[in-house]
Amino acid sequence: MNQYLIVNEWEIIEDAFISTNNRVSESIFSLGNGYMGQRANFEEHYSGDSLKGNYMAGVYYPDKTRVGWWKNGYPEYFAKVLNSINWIGIDIVIDGEQLDLAVCKTEIFKRTLNMKEGFLERRFEATLPSGKRVKVYSKRFLSIVTKEIGAIQYSITPVNFSGELKITPYLDGDVINEDSNYDEKFWEEISKINSSTETSLKIKTKKLDFHVCSTMLFDIFQNDKKLNLPSIETSRDKYVAKTIKVCCTPDLETVIYKYVANVTSRNLSLDTLSHQAFDLVEKAQIKGFNYLLKEQAKAWEEKWLESDIVINGDLSAQQAIRYNIFQLNQTYTGEDDRLNIGPKGFTGEKYGGSTYWDTEAYCLPFYLATAEEKIARNLLIYRFKQLEQAKANAKKLGFTKGALYPMVTMNGEECHNEWEITFEEIHRNGAIAHAIYDYVNYTGDKSYLGEFGLTVLVEISRFWEERVNFSCEKNKYVMLGVTGPNEYENNVNNNWYTSKIACWTLEYTLEVIDYLKINDPAVFEQLDKELGLKVQEINKWKDIITNMYFAFDEKLGIFLQQDGYMDKDQTLVRDLDPSNLPINQNWSWDRILRSCYIKQADVLQGLYLLENNYSLDTIKKNFDFYEPRTVHESSLSPCVHSILAAKIGYKQKAYEMYLRTARLDLDNYNNDTSDGCHITSMAGTWMSVIQGFAGMRVTNGNLCFTPFIPEHWGSYSFKIMFRNHLLELTIDKNKIIISKKLGDELSIIINSISYSFKDILTIEL
Amino acid sequence: MNQYLIVNEWEIIEDAFISTNNRVSESIFSLGNGYMGQRANFEEHYSGDSLKGNYMAGVYYPDKTRVGWWKNGYPEYFAKVLNSINWIGIDIVIDGEQLDLAVCKTEIFKRTLNMKEGFLERRFEATLPSGKRVKVYSKRFLSIVTKEIGAIQYSITPVNFSGELKITPYLDGDVINEDSNYDEKFWEEISKINSSTETSLKIKTKKLDFHVCSTMLFDIFQNDKKLNLPSIETSRDKYVAKTIKVCCTPDLETVIYKYVANVTSRNLSLDTLSHQAFDLVEKAQIKGFNYLLKEQAKAWEEKWLESDIVINGDLSAQQAIRYNIFQLNQTYTGEDDRLNIGPKGFTGEKYGGSTYWDTEAYCLPFYLATAEEKIARNLLIYRFKQLEQAKANAKKLGFTKGALYPMVTMNGEECHNEWEITFEEIHRNGAIAHAIYDYVNYTGDKSYLGEFGLTVLVEISRFWEERVNFSCEKNKYVMLGVTGPNEYENNVNNNWYTSKIACWTLEYTLEVIDYLKINDPAVFEQLDKELGLKVQEINKWKDIITNMYFAFDEKLGIFLQQDGYMDKDQTLVRDLDPSNLPINQNWSWDRILRSCYIKQADVLQGLYLLENNYSLDTIKKNFDFYEPRTVHESSLSPCVHSILAAKIGYKQKAYEMYLRTARLDLDNYNNDTSDGCHITSMAGTWMSVIQGFAGMRVTNGNLCFTPFIPEHWGSYSFKIMFRNHLLELTIDKNKIIISKKLGDELSIIINSISYSFKDILTIEL
Repeated sequence: MNQYLIVNEWEIIEDAFISTNNRVSESIFSLGNGYMGQRANFEEHYSGDSLKGNYMAGVYYPDKTRVGWWKNGYPEYFAKVLNSINWIGIDIVIDGEQLDLAVCKTEIFKRTLNMKEGFLERRFEATLPSGKRVKVYSKRFLSIVTKEIGAIQYSITPVNFSGELKITPYLDGDVINEDSNYDEKFWEEISKINSSTETSLKIKTKKLDFHVCSTMLFDIFQNDKKLNLPSIETSRDKYVAKTIKVCCTPDLETVIYKYVANVTSRNLSLDTLSHQAFDLVEKAQIKGFNYLLKEQAKAWEEKWLESDIVINGDLSAQQAIRYNIFQLNQTYTGEDDRLNIGPKGFTGEKYGGSTYWDTEAYCLPFYLATAEEKIARNLLIYRFKQLEQAKANAKKLGFTKGALYPMVTMNGEECHNEWEITFEEIHRNGAIAHAIYDYVNYTGDKSYLGEFGLTVLVEISRFWEERVNFSCEKNKYVMLGVTGPNEYENNVNNNWYTSKIACWTLEYTLEVIDYLKINDPAVFEQLDKELGLKVQEINKWKDIITNMYFAFDEKLGIFLQQDGYMDKDQTLVRDLDPSNLPINQNWSWDRILRSCYIKQADVLQGLYLLENNYSLDTIKKNFDFYEPRTVHESSLSPCVHSILAAKIGYKQKAYEMYLRTARLDLDNYNNDTSDGCHITSMAGTWMSVIQGFAGMRVTNGNLCFTPFIPEHWGSYSFKIMFRNHLLELTIDKNKIIISKKLGDELSIIINSISYSFKDILTIEL
Repeated sequence: MNQYLIVNEWEIIEDAFISTNNRVSESIFSLGNGYMGQRANFEEHYSGDSLKGNYMAGVYYPDKTRVGWWKNGYPEYFAKVLNSINWIGIDIVIDGEQLDLAVCKTEIFKRTLNMKEGFLERRFEATLPSGKRVKVYSKRFLSIVTKEIGAIQYSITPVNFSGELKITPYLDGDVINEDSNYDEKFWEEISKINSSTETSLKIKTKKLDFHVCSTMLFDIFQNDKKLNLPSIETSRDKYVAKTIKVCCTPDLETVIYKYVANVTSRNLSLDTLSHQAFDLVEKAQIKGFNYLLKEQAKAWEEKWLESDIVINGDLSAQQAIRYNIFQLNQTYTGEDDRLNIGPKGFTGEKYGGSTYWDTEAYCLPFYLATAEEKIARNLLIYRFKQLEQAKANAKKLGFTKGALYPMVTMNGEECHNEWEITFEEIHRNGAIAHAIYDYVNYTGDKSYLGEFGLTVLVEISRFWEERVNFSCEKNKYVMLGVTGPNEYENNVNNNWYTSKIACWTLEYTLEVIDYLKINDPAVFEQLDKELGLKVQEINKWKDIITNMYFAFDEKLGIFLQQDGYMDKDQTLVRDLDPSNLPINQNWSWDRILRSCYIKQADVLQGLYLLENNYSLDTIKKNFDFYEPRTVHESSLSPCVHSILAAKIGYKQKAYEMYLRTARLDLDNYNNDTSDGCHITSMAGTWMSVIQGFAGMRVTNGNLCFTPFIPEHWGSYSFKIMFRNHLLELTIDKNKIIISKKLGDELSIIINSISYSFKDILTIEL
């Protein structure tokens, strides 16, 4: 935990330069536009500790794996999100002395992430070792209007000297990934141009042949006058730069506007890359920095219209929730159905930037409720498109049919190499099935089931069918050798969550089959043929549903996380000496595994996803048992506990759990924000407010709320997109007000009472 | 399986050069003398596929680990047995053309490992690409009389040409380990000498600073006359060579005798290395090749006197058992108590050449019975000396007291990085305790208990005490999260073997305490103080012994391998389609884990080690249940099954299991001999004969036999050292003859009847 940022409703502010905070700030102040993103590295040279990061969505590298002992079925590579061309770089040399904050005395420093308008700015005054003092102001953004474009304004003003200023904007592809398994560089140069009219660099990945081309243009101003000065071109392998020399005097501001277009072979044909990049950057230069920034602010205003949450009476919570929403919107825009949401988004290298079950289990509700339908639909189609790889994955592991989606993926292939995760954490398959239910339930778009949904559901069901086995001992089907969501257990038998989500998949698949048979017989007939559905398998699914084994503790009235869980020492988290926490930093792995401590919601995850099947009393008993055993050492855990706590009326607990997620990165709660931000868990924060405090659900096509408000909040408001209605809800201690911007009359259920309204609805609570 | 070797009672013979067999042959024809060893690489240059290997015992490298995901408690390095200076090299160039079997036509080829006298020879006729044909004969050995010395005789005879022969003996330290984690080289040069009188190379490891110095001298003969020719010296980094040019004519044999001394900083002080190496090699040269070879033959004759097994009527079995004994004697001689027995000995890089529980569980009985007492004692002292590291290891994993010996080690530190093994395969601790019992039981040397044994036993018992926990659910102590000897299960609860060997350790520790209290009170008092034995802990041990949970299947009357084992699908191995086998090559890891198939004896390992506690009927029931579920995919498995089968009268099964181990490498049964030979399992083969067929046990200080003979064997004989008696036993269909070479009258029990004799005893069976 390290709280050094200034609280502000629309901005993240750092007001002093402390080099030991730099990596954390680089993560927190990251920019992204769904197409590309970057850590908040400095434009000018910085020789201090820094994790350089410029990322192009979907451009990855299949790095040769590093495992202790190879297991059959392991993938050959671990995909890494690639640190790509450093296009922000502007070296500043003052009378031969390089501007470098690592060696300067920095008197004034302020870094601001403006979330309302989507830009990063920085202002500082620094004294160089020679005693020369400069004022610097920089502002940059990644356009959400023209995704390929990044623009930078960078100005230098001497305070106490006159002299020569060398300004060198550059493009540098000679970059590394810190997490490279074998210290290899992943890029090679294809071509570069460094002429008087164009500076451009094209590189490609050594494997998979992703091409990235960046082209820059820039203008330099003094006294609001554009300077036309000759430049010195510098080129070396994977690097192009132009240097301009200007004279500077005290208080004379020199401003450079640098425009860069970044294009990739993912979106454009190889032969047009250079041309398109130039075209894009030329247009940007013509529009100019200020115009582009206005476009940016306007576009962000529209995003906020759909997704903002306003909290009155708690500025820190206000900043946090906006930060989470801002980062989610920077990470994924849903326009490209080949993309997904990496756990760190564009804020770091960790977790390979790949797709995890986080997307379906935590992120989908956010995009469903804050963006148009097709955004969430594209997240589902992403998995549909990867079905063949998921089938191949199941085959590779020895299954004769069915699909096992990977734990971690870039292109549908598994790229994670720990057997206890890769092979055993198969509950992910259930989350992917459940996302189909979630989407259809929220949007009402049942056409999805015939078009894509059933195909995925059937193949997942086939996997579950083969993955269980019949135990003669128990006279039941069992599910052996799994890892549940609680990764502090590995290779356990009959993990309740996994068995439950498996059976639920079978049930839902049968339900969808019945639905399509009746409502869309032609489509069903076609699917039936394509999928080769067999009577025996459908009967087998029914038999598994009826005869699946679920461990239950009669005495406690709880579902058992897995066989043998009650054999563990049951000391509660609160009774541990606090020096043990977090256990993942203080305990050996085997001690963790033997303990009863739960990393993240496991049985409770099931009760959250499938809450309609359980009574409040059941949820309460399980919550009362498992919450005191949960250490929440995954960022994905507290939100589920918060939502369940809200549901069973534990308001204080709901708020406490909310606090653990909301400022996770801003306060560097787990001391790991230097690696990047916890993007996917940010959706969990959003869920805590909307599904937790406001109690939003969609039941039988109706939007329902059971709202409450944390004690010291005055009120909170949020926007929801629901089936072509744009709603704004405001909840305070006494009432809920719902106003509607779009759409016809709508029925809504508040605390179990149904109301119809067209424009505005006010209900006393 | 690939049978290309000629069957012979004292030799291993390969009679054709097939390059695809080369790596396998390099393993099989390996030489060693306990101090150093080497794969059977060719002396002359060979550009074909080859795993180069020259190893110095105890010289290892802490290679930076390669893991997918770091777990708390992992060691920083994985120790690698080091490929050291290639000192056998002799390059041959004929009229500018290099002799290289990879590009020659090889008409005649014979490679022979002479096990009786301990040397390797090779004879071939090859035609070079130019059409020149040569005959080559080479012979080499690693002296077991002067451990540092290796000697080579190498002769070349032109068949169809006259010309110039360039002979270049060299020392090459610029070598690699194929299993280097990051393709690093591990050596750097310290110094070299390449003068007219001496050729020497000194290198050191980049970490840990092991120094190795090799010095070579050589003589060249034609027509039995030593030639005095000038040599050309070549030196480069980590390489020294001398080249001699001679004229050769058809049928004129040129012979080089190369002598090398290899010394290390493990045995000698740094400043004397070069001097000592020169001294040693000079003495060897003076003695001359033939004299050294005679010494070697004599020394091997003595070894065979103590350890030979003769099988009449089964030449293939005869060759196999001798091969196993030969390799065991090449690997470990017991003179250096810092050394141990790597699973591959000196025959390859795999398994890091480190110490595993194989030593205690499989190798100890061989050395106990075939060598003087101090050899086995040194194996025990090896662990005693590493007690502090074992205590540190337990501390690292979060235990407040006790010792956990590492799964894999070079110097007492753990150097294995798979959590399911490193942290969970803790039964190794039990084997180390049991070895103390074994040693004392066999030798009667109870002084060991006070001197070293109890200290180790107490620390292991303390570990077990803390490793179990009390289950309120079961009202018993349980042992959660372990991996048993059957590594096809990971992280299971209440593995019967582990819990049993743990309780056994506690019992034996208490027994030893009682013994010392009564018989050696002064020693006990001292130990009591040193160890700080507490009444509470002793009481706790007693409580654990009384209240430990062991899963037992009442219906079947068997011990359950672990909780939940009976939930698995119970299809027997024989009912699997054979294409599934071996499952470790055909199945994904998760499928293996979920299956009931057993890699190596697990419950049965316990019944083997602790057989005195179980009735024949219990052993039989468990054998009948577990044998059909065992796939024997560890080389350490069949011997235990063989011994138990012999015990319960399943003679055919005992022989079948014996066959699976005896020719494991000679027939490349598991298709992995190219990596090196299965040295530790070779001791298991020996055990199958002695403890299995001959039924040897030591009970209450008496040597006991319950012999039988496999059906188509005529007779078998073997030597046993037992408490200063050297016995030779011969068993045929009708009788057992025991003759005694050393010692006084001895009582011996055969099929439960006691006999006393002095020189010879003949008993009808």
